[in-house]
Amino acid sequence: MKGPRLAVALVHHPVLDRRGDRVTTAVTNLDIHDIARAARTFGAERFYVVTPVAEQRLLVERILGHWREGFGATSNPDRRQALDLVELAVTLDEALERWTDACGGEVLPLLTAAGRQGGLGYGACRNLLGERPGMLILGTGWGLAPEFFERGWPVLDPIRGCGDYNHLSVRAAAAILLDRLLGRHPGDH
Amino acid sequence: MKGPRLAVALVHHPVLDRRGDRVTTAVTNLDIHDIARAARTFGAERFYVVTPVAEQRLLVERILGHWREGFGATSNPDRRQALDLVELAVTLDEALERWTDACGGEVLPLLTAAGRQGGLGYGACRNLLGERPGMLILGTGWGLAPEFFERGWPVLDPIRGCGDYNHLSVRAAAAILLDRLLGRHPGDH
Repeated sequence: MKGPRLAVALVHHPVLDRRGDRVTTAVTNLDIHDIARAARTFGAERFYVVTPVAEQRLLVERILGHWREGFGATSNPDRRQALDLVELAVTLDEALERWTDACGGEVLPLLTAAGRQGGLGYGACRNLLGERPGMLILGTGWGLAPEFFERGWPVLDPIRGCGDYNHLSVRAAAAILLDRLLGRHPGDH
Repeated sequence: MKGPRLAVALVHHPVLDRRGDRVTTAVTNLDIHDIARAARTFGAERFYVVTPVAEQRLLVERILGHWREGFGATSNPDRRQALDLVELAVTLDEALERWTDACGGEVLPLLTAAGRQGGLGYGACRNLLGERPGMLILGTGWGLAPEFFERGWPVLDPIRGCGDYNHLSVRAAAAILLDRLLGRHPGDH
């Protein structure tokens, strides 16, 4: 059985900083590795690293080159399989357009936010992903800028632990979201 | 309602390397931050960083000092709340003993392994944690050494995505396991 089709986008601009200002964050090497490995594990097909900064995209290309074609490709083939999912994009719209092209039809953008209530539940989202491909959109820094939330796209329920504290790293949030949307949970229900 | 009581232990010795040899891994700064934040989010009460190497424990103490008492404590109080959960231990047995003392009674060690089948399901594990406190035991490197699996402790089912690839970082695995054992998943069932 073919599972749902999902891509992940990690947005570095426009995102918020701790004070709520709009900023561009630097790409973090470990975000790429961790999220690519989680994407590969759960069967997401693409992982778009979105940044408008050309130098940052070059840096990512160099990292990818090491693991895809350099020493890393032979020393750690598992890592290569994960990083093969990574693509660079200048804007989220570019990433969405390319993923739409790859799927040959409309895709469902899925926004994420730690602090917004009343969103789309995970069960409902799994059902939607049974009908058309999705793109899970994650913000770095203190989260996606407000303008993304004015586009009428669904927003996933925040990840709730216990109490009010939810300051997960974007790496941890990505892993949990992929598990909730694509993971198999045998014996859990 | 008081939730289940859980501690996390991150073991740096004895663990396996890529060739299956028994080694001691170096402590990774980001493991501490990410797992502490996930532990705090999901309500785990302690996060034991286990290493027999005195220099490594000193290094962790310095990092913790920065965030607990130094500049980081005022500049980023959320991070402080997470890192307040961290304790150092020389061996896993020491960590278990201290967590047992803190709980005032026997605790359930929960081993994790990416490659072992036929373990304890997550629903069953949630039920067990309703009865007594647990300790989620994670290995760095290529996983916990075989001797841990000879102690008769339950082993959690591996995290399954799709297919055979499951090379999650220990940070991602910890986040997913905490979500599966302690997370609230409203509207998912």
